[in-house]
Amino acid sequence: MPAIAFLECVRCHHHVSADVPQTLCPLCAGSLYVRYDMDSLKHTAKRVNPARYAAESAASLGMWRYRDVLPSVTPVTLAEGWTPMLRSKRYPNLFVKEEGANPTGTFKARGLCLAVTMAKHYGLQHLAVPSAGNAAGALAAYAAAAGIAAHIFMPKDVPFANYLEGVVYGADVTMVDGLISDCARMVGERIKAQKETGTDPSQVWFDISTLKEPFRVEGKKTMGYELVEQLGWEYPDAVFYPTGGGVGLIGMWKAFEEMEALGWVTGKRPRMFALQSSGCAPVAQAYAEGKDVSTFFEHASTFAAGLRVPKPYGDVIILEIVRASGGAALAYSDEAILASVLDWAKQEGIFLSPEGAAATAAYDSLIASGDLKSTDRVVLFNTGGGLKYTDMTAEAMHLRRPGTLPTSMPVGGIITPV
Amino acid sequence: MPAIAFLECVRCHHHVSADVPQTLCPLCAGSLYVRYDMDSLKHTAKRVNPARYAAESAASLGMWRYRDVLPSVTPVTLAEGWTPMLRSKRYPNLFVKEEGANPTGTFKARGLCLAVTMAKHYGLQHLAVPSAGNAAGALAAYAAAAGIAAHIFMPKDVPFANYLEGVVYGADVTMVDGLISDCARMVGERIKAQKETGTDPSQVWFDISTLKEPFRVEGKKTMGYELVEQLGWEYPDAVFYPTGGGVGLIGMWKAFEEMEALGWVTGKRPRMFALQSSGCAPVAQAYAEGKDVSTFFEHASTFAAGLRVPKPYGDVIILEIVRASGGAALAYSDEAILASVLDWAKQEGIFLSPEGAAATAAYDSLIASGDLKSTDRVVLFNTGGGLKYTDMTAEAMHLRRPGTLPTSMPVGGIITPV
Ligand SMILES: [Zn+2]
Ligand SMILES: [Zn+2]
Repeated sequence: MPAIAFLECVRCHHHVSADVPQTLCPLCAGSLYVRYDMDSLKHTAKRVNPARYAAESAASLGMWRYRDVLPSVTPVTLAEGWTPMLRSKRYPNLFVKEEGANPTGTFKARGLCLAVTMAKHYGLQHLAVPSAGNAAGALAAYAAAAGIAAHIFMPKDVPFANYLEGVVYGADVTMVDGLISDCARMVGERIKAQKETGTDPSQVWFDISTLKEPFRVEGKKTMGYELVEQLGWEYPDAVFYPTGGGVGLIGMWKAFEEMEALGWVTGKRPRMFALQSSGCAPVAQAYAEGKDVSTFFEHASTFAAGLRVPKPYGDVIILEIVRASGGAALAYSDEAILASVLDWAKQEGIFLSPEGAAATAAYDSLIASGDLKSTDRVVLFNTGGGLKYTDMTAEAMHLRRPGTLPTSMPVGGIITPV
Repeated sequence: MPAIAFLECVRCHHHVSADVPQTLCPLCAGSLYVRYDMDSLKHTAKRVNPARYAAESAASLGMWRYRDVLPSVTPVTLAEGWTPMLRSKRYPNLFVKEEGANPTGTFKARGLCLAVTMAKHYGLQHLAVPSAGNAAGALAAYAAAAGIAAHIFMPKDVPFANYLEGVVYGADVTMVDGLISDCARMVGERIKAQKETGTDPSQVWFDISTLKEPFRVEGKKTMGYELVEQLGWEYPDAVFYPTGGGVGLIGMWKAFEEMEALGWVTGKRPRMFALQSSGCAPVAQAYAEGKDVSTFFEHASTFAAGLRVPKPYGDVIILEIVRASGGAALAYSDEAILASVLDWAKQEGIFLSPEGAAATAAYDSLIASGDLKSTDRVVLFNTGGGLKYTDMTAEAMHLRRPGTLPTSMPVGGIITPV
C-alpha cells in the first residue's frame, strides 16, 4: 500500500499535506483528491495478485484487494466492496453491479470505510455527517467498528432502515424536518459554534461530508477498479449511475484516470450516464439547459430517497464528466422508477433500490430511443439493495399505510431548521 | 461439474434415481441426499482453482466456485454464497460468517438457488413452500429468475420484508394465521387435492420444503466448504448455528463428510452448536432431556422469526450431529438476543439478525461458563442481515408501534388454518 504523496485541489490544483486531517482547499474551497507517486506505483502496484485472493483473507478482502492504490493504513473493515456483477437474463450485454451486497446494504460503505479508516488514523474522535439516509447508516456502522462517535443528521422521512441503523449502531441521531441541504447547513453551524465557543479541539466534530474531505471519494473509486476488473480489464461502453450526490460517478472517473496512468486499462472510457428522479433532478435539469452548474431543486420529493439531493456539492464535476464522456444526465418519474423495480423483480429476480431502478428505467428508454444499442456493453449500478427501502417501496405500491415516525422520539428529537 | 450418481435416503440408505424429481424416500419417507462417485471425484475435483477466481466470472461465482462438488447443471444464479468471514474486533478467535450478504439477505438463497436450478432442469412449473419467511423470499426471487411460478405460505406476522419480497417478485403469496407448521400442512393438503382432482400433472405444485427434496440441503452444504476454505482448509474448533429448520447445520455436516472423502480437510470436526430462542426451543429442549427427537413446541413466539419452527423436520439428524460432535443445543431469551444485537452493533459495527444474535448470546454464555475457551477458534453464522428485520428489531426495542399488516390484503388473503 502506497504512501499518499499529497492532496490535490480538484479546482485550482493546489497541493496540501495528508499528514493532518484536511477538509477543503484552503485557497479556493475546492474538493481534495488523494494523489500518489504514480511513477513509483507503476513499478510496485499489481493489477492482479492471485495469492491475495486465496484462503482466509479472500472472503473479507473486498475493496481492499486494491490496497496497492489505496492509502497505506490499517483498514477499519466490515468486508465492503468486491460486489457481484450480475448479467441480465434478458439483455446479454447489460450488467448490474449489485452494491446491495455491501455492509449496510449500499455503496456508501466504500467511502465511509475509507473515510473512517483515515479518521481513526488521524485520531479524530467525533465525526458528523448530513445524509439522505444511507451515508448516515454507513457512518454509524464504521464509526462503531472504529470506536469513534458519529453524529448523523438526516431528513425525518428517510427510509426506516436508515433511522434504525443510526440507533442500533449507537450514533447520535438527529432527524431533521427538512432535506439533506438543511442537514448540511446544521452540521456546519454546529461545528462553527463549537469552534467559536472554544470547545476542546479533540471534541470538535469533523465534517465527513462527501467531497468536503478527500477519502469518501477515494473509497468510492474502487467501484471503477472493480467494474473494469470484472469485465476482464476492459472498459464497458457505458456506465449508468443513479446520482444523488454523484460521488460514485466522480470516484469512478478518478479510478479510470489512475488505471490508465498505471497501464491497467486502455481504450475509450465509457459514456457516463447520471440518472435522477424527476422529483429531484438538479443535474439532469442543468444538463438539459446546457449549464455548467446546477440550481437548487425546489420542493424535492421522490421515493428514491438517495436521489433527494437538491444541489449536489459535486455538480460541476459530474456535469463535466457526463459531457466529456459523451453520456447524459437524465431524469425519470417515480412511476417509471417503480415500474422498473417491479419489472426487474418479476423478470430477473433482482429487487432493486428505487435509485437503481432510475438507471434501469433509463436503460429501457435509451434502448427504445436508439441512443443506446443492445450490443453496447453497459454496467448499471444498483447503488443499494431493495430491502433497505421496504417502507418506501411498499408505500409507492400502496401496499401499506404511509410510513410514520417511530412512536418514541429519536435521540435529539425532530428538529425544524430555522 | 459431476453427474449425480444417485440420491440416498439418509435413514434407510435406499438409493433412488436423480433423473426425475424426487421428494422423500419411497420406502421410509426419509430425506434424500445427493451422492456422487467420490472415487472419480477424487481425481477430477479441484480444491482450489485460481484461474476460476479471476476476471469477469469471479464476482458472480459465489457458491458455484464449488461446482466440482455440485450437480452438473446450468445455475440459476443471483451471485449467492462466498460471503464474508469477519473477524471479531474483540474476540480474535471468533469469526462471523455474514450470510446477510447473500441475495435476499439470508443463507436461504444457497438452498433455493440449487433447488430452483434443479427444478428448472427437471422442467417443473410450480413450486410451493411453507416458510417462516426467508425461504419464501428466496424462493420468490429464484423462481422469478427461472421463470417458474412460486406459491408461498408464511405466517401473517413474518417480518414485513418477507411479505414484500413475495409481492415484488410476483409470487402467489398466502399469509397464514398460524405458524410454519400450519403452512406446511396447507401446502401438503393443496398438493393432495390437486392430485385427487386430476389436475394436469404439469400444473401440480412441487413441494420444495427443505429436506423434503434433496437440493436445498445440497446448496446449503456450500457453507461448510466455504468456512473450511476461508480458514485455510482447516476445521475450526466449533461452529455456532442459529437453528430453526436446522438444515444449514445438516448441510455443513454433509460437506465435512465429503471434504474428508476427497482429502480436502483432515483433523477433528468442529463441535456443532445449535442455537435457538427460548420462545421456540424444540431442539434445545430435546437435547436437554436426552431425547433423540423433538416434541412440537407449543405457543412458539420469538422476534427471531427464522427460529419460529416448532418442530423441525430434521430434528433427529440435528440432535445426532450436535451430540456426535461434542456440541450442544441451547436456547436464549429474546431479551438476551436483543441485548446481543445491540452489543454487536455498537461494539463491532455489525447489525446481526435476531437469529445470529442467538448465536452471539450463546458464545458469551459459553465463554463465561468455561465450556468454551477464548482460544477456541469459532465460526458463528449470522444467517441473515439485520436489515431484513427492521420491524421486528424496532418492535423489540419499543422503537415503534408493533408491526401491523399492510392495509391492502396480500394475494390470497389471510387464511386461518382449520
Ligand atoms: Zn483550490
Ligand atoms: Zn428410506
